[in-house]
Amino acid sequence: MIKAGIMGSTGYVGSELTRILYNHPEVEIKVLTSKSYSNKDFNSIYQNFSKICELKCEENNLEKVVNQLDVVFLALPHGMTSRIITDSILKNVKVIDLSADFRLKSKEVYEKWYKFKHDNDILLKKAVYGLPEWKRKQVITSRLIANPGCYPTCALLCLLPLIKEGIIEEENIIIDAKSGVSGAGRTLALSTHFSECNESIKAYNVLSHRHTPEIEEQLSELIENEILVTFTPHLIPMNRGILSTCYGNLKKGYEYDDIKEIYEKYYNNEFFIRLTSKNIFPETKWVKGSNYCDIGFTIDENTGKIIIIGAIDNLIKGAAGQAVQNMNLMFNLEEDMGLKSIPMFPI
Amino acid sequence: MIKAGIMGSTGYVGSELTRILYNHPEVEIKVLTSKSYSNKDFNSIYQNFSKICELKCEENNLEKVVNQLDVVFLALPHGMTSRIITDSILKNVKVIDLSADFRLKSKEVYEKWYKFKHDNDILLKKAVYGLPEWKRKQVITSRLIANPGCYPTCALLCLLPLIKEGIIEEENIIIDAKSGVSGAGRTLALSTHFSECNESIKAYNVLSHRHTPEIEEQLSELIENEILVTFTPHLIPMNRGILSTCYGNLKKGYEYDDIKEIYEKYYNNEFFIRLTSKNIFPETKWVKGSNYCDIGFTIDENTGKIIIIGAIDNLIKGAAGQAVQNMNLMFNLEEDMGLKSIPMFPI
Amino acid sequence: MIKAGIMGSTGYVGSELTRILYNHPEVEIKVLTSKSYSNKDFNSIYQNFSKICELKCEENNLEKVVNQLDVVFLALPHGMTSRIITDSILKNVKVIDLSADFRLKSKEVYEKWYKFKHDNDILLKKAVYGLPEWKRKQVITSRLIANPGCYPTCALLCLLPLIKEGIIEEENIIIDAKSGVSGAGRTLALSTHFSECNESIKAYNVLSHRHTPEIEEQLSELIENEILVTFTPHLIPMNRGILSTCYGNLKKGYEYDDIKEIYEKYYNNEFFIRLTSKNIFPETKWVKGSNYCDIGFTIDENTGKIIIIGAIDNLIKGAAGQAVQNMNLMFNLEEDMGLKSIPMFPI
Amino acid sequence: MIKAGIMGSTGYVGSELTRILYNHPEVEIKVLTSKSYSNKDFNSIYQNFSKICELKCEENNLEKVVNQLDVVFLALPHGMTSRIITDSILKNVKVIDLSADFRLKSKEVYEKWYKFKHDNDILLKKAVYGLPEWKRKQVITSRLIANPGCYPTCALLCLLPLIKEGIIEEENIIIDAKSGVSGAGRTLALSTHFSECNESIKAYNVLSHRHTPEIEEQLSELIENEILVTFTPHLIPMNRGILSTCYGNLKKGYEYDDIKEIYEKYYNNEFFIRLTSKNIFPETKWVKGSNYCDIGFTIDENTGKIIIIGAIDNLIKGAAGQAVQNMNLMFNLEEDMGLKSIPMFPI
Repeated sequence: MIKAGIMGSTGYVGSELTRILYNHPEVEIKVLTSKSYSNKDFNSIYQNFSKICELKCEENNLEKVVNQLDVVFLALPHGMTSRIITDSILKNVKVIDLSADFRLKSKEVYEKWYKFKHDNDILLKKAVYGLPEWKRKQVITSRLIANPGCYPTCALLCLLPLIKEGIIEEENIIIDAKSGVSGAGRTLALSTHFSECNESIKAYNVLSHRHTPEIEEQLSELIENEILVTFTPHLIPMNRGILSTCYGNLKKGYEYDDIKEIYEKYYNNEFFIRLTSKNIFPETKWVKGSNYCDIGFTIDENTGKIIIIGAIDNLIKGAAGQAVQNMNLMFNLEEDMGLKSIPMFPI
Repeated sequence: MIKAGIMGSTGYVGSELTRILYNHPEVEIKVLTSKSYSNKDFNSIYQNFSKICELKCEENNLEKVVNQLDVVFLALPHGMTSRIITDSILKNVKVIDLSADFRLKSKEVYEKWYKFKHDNDILLKKAVYGLPEWKRKQVITSRLIANPGCYPTCALLCLLPLIKEGIIEEENIIIDAKSGVSGAGRTLALSTHFSECNESIKAYNVLSHRHTPEIEEQLSELIENEILVTFTPHLIPMNRGILSTCYGNLKKGYEYDDIKEIYEKYYNNEFFIRLTSKNIFPETKWVKGSNYCDIGFTIDENTGKIIIIGAIDNLIKGAAGQAVQNMNLMFNLEEDMGLKSIPMFPI
Repeated sequence: MIKAGIMGSTGYVGSELTRILYNHPEVEIKVLTSKSYSNKDFNSIYQNFSKICELKCEENNLEKVVNQLDVVFLALPHGMTSRIITDSILKNVKVIDLSADFRLKSKEVYEKWYKFKHDNDILLKKAVYGLPEWKRKQVITSRLIANPGCYPTCALLCLLPLIKEGIIEEENIIIDAKSGVSGAGRTLALSTHFSECNESIKAYNVLSHRHTPEIEEQLSELIENEILVTFTPHLIPMNRGILSTCYGNLKKGYEYDDIKEIYEKYYNNEFFIRLTSKNIFPETKWVKGSNYCDIGFTIDENTGKIIIIGAIDNLIKGAAGQAVQNMNLMFNLEEDMGLKSIPMFPI
Repeated sequence: MIKAGIMGSTGYVGSELTRILYNHPEVEIKVLTSKSYSNKDFNSIYQNFSKICELKCEENNLEKVVNQLDVVFLALPHGMTSRIITDSILKNVKVIDLSADFRLKSKEVYEKWYKFKHDNDILLKKAVYGLPEWKRKQVITSRLIANPGCYPTCALLCLLPLIKEGIIEEENIIIDAKSGVSGAGRTLALSTHFSECNESIKAYNVLSHRHTPEIEEQLSELIENEILVTFTPHLIPMNRGILSTCYGNLKKGYEYDDIKEIYEKYYNNEFFIRLTSKNIFPETKWVKGSNYCDIGFTIDENTGKIIIIGAIDNLIKGAAGQAVQNMNLMFNLEEDMGLKSIPMFPI
């Protein structure tokens, strides 16, 4: 059995990790930590675990917990893990970091977008961006995974095949994304107060969302050429789910079946990617509670645009589920182990 | 492997059955039927099953499907199963009926509350009311289970211990119940049109809801004395969940700890019943996606009332999950097999 | 024009007051105050007022604002107004207090239920409980109104006619109430964080909600006999609205038409009370955005219970609208002036 | 008093018209018609009008009602009004058509997008597209108004100033729009069944939504050059509101202040258009219950894109409110008469 720990277990991502790992056949959860609730029973905070999980939350002390573990999941605020992860820790334990601290390439980008000084150059280079469908080989041999952000996961899975094959122009890429409120986490804020966000929709962090450079870097890296995108996230009055509506200019000469073939080439053997039929488009309800990413597309003959729509459960494929998918790869388990839950509908 | 069929698989209860049975380690789904969608791929109706379940819906023809099956789940409209289930069918297959057709005791009650003539006296007597926590022995040996209604499941689990022990007066029992909209099923109706029920709450079927006689019969049967209840269901703008707030007059001399002891006596060894701590009360979010029923209570010293609050997922413990729990018992499997999913939160 | 001020204008009740008074034909809003947002433009906090209301929030300083006003509405936290309202202030300005500070009869009750020492005996006696349908005469001549709580408004309007006429027993009165989340105000709390209360229902403050003594006192006062009730509030995932399902034991000999006559006697000439037809019951959607209270009832012949259901918009008839209704009476205006908005549906 | 009739009064747009006109100081509603509910009390269908509006619904017979009216609002299904409106009717009554039948320019477009044969060429040319901010002069003198669609209203108000001034390129215009469910009307459909659309988001009618040619025609007409747009509507789990996120390629040399000046030039004197401050973007909650359209924009320096975001209440500025605004102009009333309601929040 793999001995696992979850730091920051009492956030929404942390509690999803706990739920998924708890029923994972090859994992035993040894440690849950929490800053706000240390010394409290985990199931008094998340009563869904009542009569199921009897662990008490420990302090957020990585040094202390690391020796008893094979893998540790870090669901901590941005700016923390880059300060506490070291080479010597990585010798003892595999690390899957769900914060943004190892997702980007350079310290400068962190300063610009995350407003903190990143002092961990070496590990920044060692860390693998854990999008298994595109980085499987690197994930398998890595000891430090930067688990992708929720928006980038959905947008990248939609766009990478088209970028890779040079099917769309590198300019004029727009990602209009819509997310449920759980994406904002459990920290109290006026914008996620029920009466403030229920029954309303808004764009937020327009042109300033931190997932922008993450998307751009991954797209650019793939073809070794800088790609810029316009990314607009919106807040939707629902708990879970991300829908990304992506727009690009299709290069001349490509038709529906060509694109379909490309998506099939990259994704037909992927456990967690489902391509919708022609004229059927993803809806978040069909992926909720699962690790699937559904993708559909269509071509606007009049304007030459291709529209690609992707849907994920932001807390699963967009966070905890993908983290477990990475863990499975790192420990040579079947990639979908513990992740076979069928999307639940209606929920 | 148990060969299972689901008739009426394209309703919400039918699709939940499909989801739960699909991942059940001892079950193989052989047949899905549907009146509205026969000959269509099940996963074109419920796209959550895309890339998972490749079955095509067959016609709703019990005779035709029964020979290949060990168990059949009937998720059909009221008034149908009592006409099609016979002794000879029961010889071939175990039947779990999720309609109301075998839940009540007498033909007269069906005429009064369900407005149809029930001609199947014999099986009406043979059928076992499948509330495992109170009928486990009978369920184990039965070939025909009347799977309880969603509201009765929640209310009975709250009230039966108190009735059994004679702790509350038999008069003045009130069940004020609140349900998510999925309880009304997938059939279109103005009352479940989004803009009509979103952002509003109402009582419905006041004094005329068909679950009233079901609750009354089960309570009365237990103590062989007629008990009447006042049951008021309300429609809540959410997908899933039932919360039942039950009120009764506590008999003199009982205190919190006495009642606690009684609940523990009946439920401590039950897989699916969780008693909340003092001053903690159930919320539907903590049971969604699971087969749990959470129960909490308090005593109003001023008025002598006891308030018992229960919460279930109406489509799982209130329907499909409880049906699988019954199946497990009927086939000598572990009672919680295939039902170990942890409630998912937030969802 | 009546010169009005609103203290605590940036809470939900305060902003509703601003909205209603802004379009009131006989009122001019002179002052808005706010603790959190003093010196900010009101319409930067509540952008619905953009291009409409250009006032800047002032400090919460009653002394400072009182001289320029004919009436002041106090939408402040409990425990504050009893400390700042004095006889000399009341000489200058009429006061409508939307907090609980003058709703109850005795200092002891405040200590027990609100946990603060109330030192303002004299005004506690002078204050009029502003439920116009039952206290119109006193309201007209009062200079200090204790504006009723949202739950009491709805429950009392349902129950008072039956209590007054001695139609129901004084024991066994149960009020099972359901409220939208705006009732909890704008202050951040985990329980009103979107992902925590969306898609779930719970009872809260079971047996300890502060509106209990308020309801009991008003019922008792009417017949000069102590009445205790069991009151259970529930939180519903919607913005606005309260539905109260009230249960009582009907005394022998009364039938539907008798009760109907009683309700008509008290309410047929009331602007803001609407009795539903037989077998039609109130729903919160039909009153949202208005000052109406809808009331319907039915009799359970089997158990002798009467069920009375009431619906209000918690922020209007349950707070700001009723406050303006009181103001209209205090200034000899038509009672429905500024309150004629038709409920908006669907919203 | 203007004598007004509303045909199709029992749809959501019809009932909003009734609500707005009922409180309009210069209008008396003489006739409400309904196909489904003729001969029923309007307030038995829409109980929000209980004790307010006592009219009975009449049959949908234009000939019969037209003589008693000064203006008739037609909230009927597409394809009907083009068959029943004639020159002789227009002599008797001013017509405001809320269907699509007179919004487009040519019969061919109707056949292609609406799948019906349009035989009313002459009136098609006479009809005025009733977007008052851009067609005020024509509206004032017209007797037949084609009231704009909800999506076009929002998108056009965002885009027309930029198109008019030649600020953005005519290619690469994308309108990613999000609408509440009331936009789909009151007719039952699986896609608007509560449990099907609650807690989920999807794009729908991708590349085939009928508002596409309406938007394109109006943009093109303004500059006498064909403009094509990519328009993607999404369904959001909320009752009301449309948010349009529009993307275009800004021509070189324009900065934030230039654009701001242009918007102010066109809209500073408009009653119902509110420009948000820099870095503040519209949210549907701030316009709900009102006739406002809020507009904000920003420039993506990296990609050269301009993002314009607009928000309206789809049933008011997107339908009934705009219709009344048109009526006011046609009868030389103040343009905002009866439309002064402040957006209600939270609702």
